[in-house]
Amino acid sequence: MIKHFLSLSSFSQSDLLSLIHRAQFFFQNQHRPENIHHLLKNRIFANVFYEPSTRTRCSFEIAAKRLGADIVNFVPDNSSVKKGETVYDTLKSLESLGVDGLVFRHADDYIIEKLQPLLKLPLINAGAGKFEHPSQGLLDLLTLFQEFGKLEGLKIAVCGDIKHSRVAGSLMVAAKIFGMSIYLCGPESLVPAVTDTHIQKADFDEILPEVDAVMMLRIQLERHENLDLDPKSYHHQFGMNHRRQLSMKKHAIILHPGPFNRGVEISDDMVEHSQSRIFKQMSNGVAARMAILEWTMSGRIQ
Amino acid sequence: MIKHFLSLSSFSQSDLLSLIHRAQFFFQNQHRPENIHHLLKNRIFANVFYEPSTRTRCSFEIAAKRLGADIVNFVPDNSSVKKGETVYDTLKSLESLGVDGLVFRHADDYIIEKLQPLLKLPLINAGAGKFEHPSQGLLDLLTLFQEFGKLEGLKIAVCGDIKHSRVAGSLMVAAKIFGMSIYLCGPESLVPAVTDTHIQKADFDEILPEVDAVMMLRIQLERHENLDLDPKSYHHQFGMNHRRQLSMKKHAIILHPGPFNRGVEISDDMVEHSQSRIFKQMSNGVAARMAILEWTMSGRIQ
Amino acid sequence: MIKHFLSLSSFSQSDLLSLIHRAQFFFQNQHRPENIHHLLKNRIFANVFYEPSTRTRCSFEIAAKRLGADIVNFVPDNSSVKKGETVYDTLKSLESLGVDGLVFRHADDYIIEKLQPLLKLPLINAGAGKFEHPSQGLLDLLTLFQEFGKLEGLKIAVCGDIKHSRVAGSLMVAAKIFGMSIYLCGPESLVPAVTDTHIQKADFDEILPEVDAVMMLRIQLERHENLDLDPKSYHHQFGMNHRRQLSMKKHAIILHPGPFNRGVEISDDMVEHSQSRIFKQMSNGVAARMAILEWTMSGRIQ
Repeated sequence: MIKHFLSLSSFSQSDLLSLIHRAQFFFQNQHRPENIHHLLKNRIFANVFYEPSTRTRCSFEIAAKRLGADIVNFVPDNSSVKKGETVYDTLKSLESLGVDGLVFRHADDYIIEKLQPLLKLPLINAGAGKFEHPSQGLLDLLTLFQEFGKLEGLKIAVCGDIKHSRVAGSLMVAAKIFGMSIYLCGPESLVPAVTDTHIQKADFDEILPEVDAVMMLRIQLERHENLDLDPKSYHHQFGMNHRRQLSMKKHAIILHPGPFNRGVEISDDMVEHSQSRIFKQMSNGVAARMAILEWTMSGRIQ
Repeated sequence: MIKHFLSLSSFSQSDLLSLIHRAQFFFQNQHRPENIHHLLKNRIFANVFYEPSTRTRCSFEIAAKRLGADIVNFVPDNSSVKKGETVYDTLKSLESLGVDGLVFRHADDYIIEKLQPLLKLPLINAGAGKFEHPSQGLLDLLTLFQEFGKLEGLKIAVCGDIKHSRVAGSLMVAAKIFGMSIYLCGPESLVPAVTDTHIQKADFDEILPEVDAVMMLRIQLERHENLDLDPKSYHHQFGMNHRRQLSMKKHAIILHPGPFNRGVEISDDMVEHSQSRIFKQMSNGVAARMAILEWTMSGRIQ
Repeated sequence: MIKHFLSLSSFSQSDLLSLIHRAQFFFQNQHRPENIHHLLKNRIFANVFYEPSTRTRCSFEIAAKRLGADIVNFVPDNSSVKKGETVYDTLKSLESLGVDGLVFRHADDYIIEKLQPLLKLPLINAGAGKFEHPSQGLLDLLTLFQEFGKLEGLKIAVCGDIKHSRVAGSLMVAAKIFGMSIYLCGPESLVPAVTDTHIQKADFDEILPEVDAVMMLRIQLERHENLDLDPKSYHHQFGMNHRRQLSMKKHAIILHPGPFNRGVEISDDMVEHSQSRIFKQMSNGVAARMAILEWTMSGRIQ
């Protein structure tokens, strides 16, 4: 069976917990090569990013190399598109070149559903469409688990452009699996309708004192020209800053998937505040992706 | 002696057969790292592509890594050209950096002839000019050899823009070496004059029932604005499709160097038809390039 | 203590000599992997180039690989800048991803000063701002040392756009450390004021017969539109050519950091003249960068 990593929703709670524990092992051992460098020896993955990414792409690349694997960066350029090659044909070509797995990003919301049954090698969703970003979801779960030793019952506020956020999408999927409560905050037009018992809309300032974690999302200002939001007023209404941090519980943590806009959704002094786990999330991202890459190869013949 | 890999024409039939056999060994062992991963250990090649390529570049990169070598992607950008550096100076610089061989692509038809005597490290033609694409030629020969167990006497139709095709160029060179018969088909203006006993022009539909293989070429529509050919009528006249496949021998195979335009030179259902070897060619491409990289290093001191 | 490699000026003469000797060891062993391939095993560096570079970037990449390390190419694209991420946040992210060191190039003259105290991993100056290019400085010193067996007392002319040259900057720093004499030549407007006993302005043709080496700099014609200098007259006044070479001492050598403009600052026949060490400098560049990468990791826990 081919082990695609496409959505957190395809995992049971216990399978997801195993992945989190494995990621934690990698977090603790990422600088102990003798423990891990042999695990994916001689594997070759391909990074296939149809949308630009530096952080996620590098994160998978480092994860692969830490496990002794290698990764080929396949950059679909304009020329291939002009030559008329379909995404399916490109991925099938890489399958034919003998790579062991495809780390894949694309803007199309439904492309993974269409491609997955047609491929004979693991496809890893590195942000396809706007619904899910499951490797980010796993690193967020790892970060929460390190902090609280459990996931069930955690209360998490998410604030920002939730409608366009695949990060929020994966967190909401995880909330259902683990029984966490998610509170959606942000400008009315950017918060979707709620259809699940674990997820509800909330006023940002009212909910902040209640939550264990707050996930701040980047406002993609370049996408919202018509939005009547200047950075300063946005920050005033929905930004994380000293005033809001004071209203939070002492043990509550601040998350952000990055990249962040200092002074917009988060003030300068909050980025590396003692309650912030933003850079910790990035470290956890490598560990989570090591667990994902290893998982996709388990049971697969070299 | 420096072992440049520039043209199939510089090989004898028996030397080329050795390369094909070696490529077949790599094809069978590409997922058995214990048999091959030590062969080019610590070698570093450079990919130097002045024309865009994803498939060929990745194919060489994977071939190098499977043999334990590494490869540096040197992307000549506009800035270096603006700075006035010549191609010779760029390649000489890479030679000075101590790389073991240069995988090279350039638009100029004659640049390899000029550069080759000036370099002290192997130069590998990854598509320079429009005359030859010898690593593609080797993978095509490997594909034919796997299918028929021999090359002598094979009849192959080539259909499309033959004048601008370095793929066709290398196949015609191989035809002379192995005594294969090549039939050139396609729009009058895109088929060159014939000057060799092994090569003749033919009507596509008339020759199809006779051949062992047909090599479909991509019509580079973007280069032929003045050509009075819309994709639909081109497909009708020269495209591979179900009707034409039915006229072929049962054992005959369909080849294409990729990328292909579904619905233009090949219909959708033919790409993965049981008689198509298109994705097999891509797999063979890695094996062929492993044989080439190894050959260029043979007898070379580390 | 974090070992940043930012400027030659932070080294004592004896520490710099140790680096030169180590670079010489790597020069002699770069094709003997058994002696060196284990030295940085499992280390992962990041190339972070905000300004384009092919030569320096490749040189660091090859240096890392020769020592058994790996390197991730992080290309900051327009999109990240548009997303508003600061350079600090990008570097901090890479630190969080667990890379062992950052090879960094940026146009800002003062950015390294600002960033260095904030980072917990070694920062390697690969040409930041216009003041210094210390890895180039080290390779130049290695080249001089190989030639003359000493550095003290050497006389070196530097000719060209010295004001905008970080190469010249690092050489002047080295001159003070080792007691070399530097003579600045070139168009009046491109030669800075002199403030040090080891550095003086000179007439190019008058000083040439006196010097042990001449460092030719590329005239960045694209930056000097208002400069009243056409290539031909520039070459006549300040270019290295046969006539000038004849006026030099027999043992004196010609240097150039590359890329060079044949026919502008150096004539065609001088590039590979027996007194030129231009391509030797490039080879030395890999050796020097191996010494630098190793040095930054010394005493650092895996």
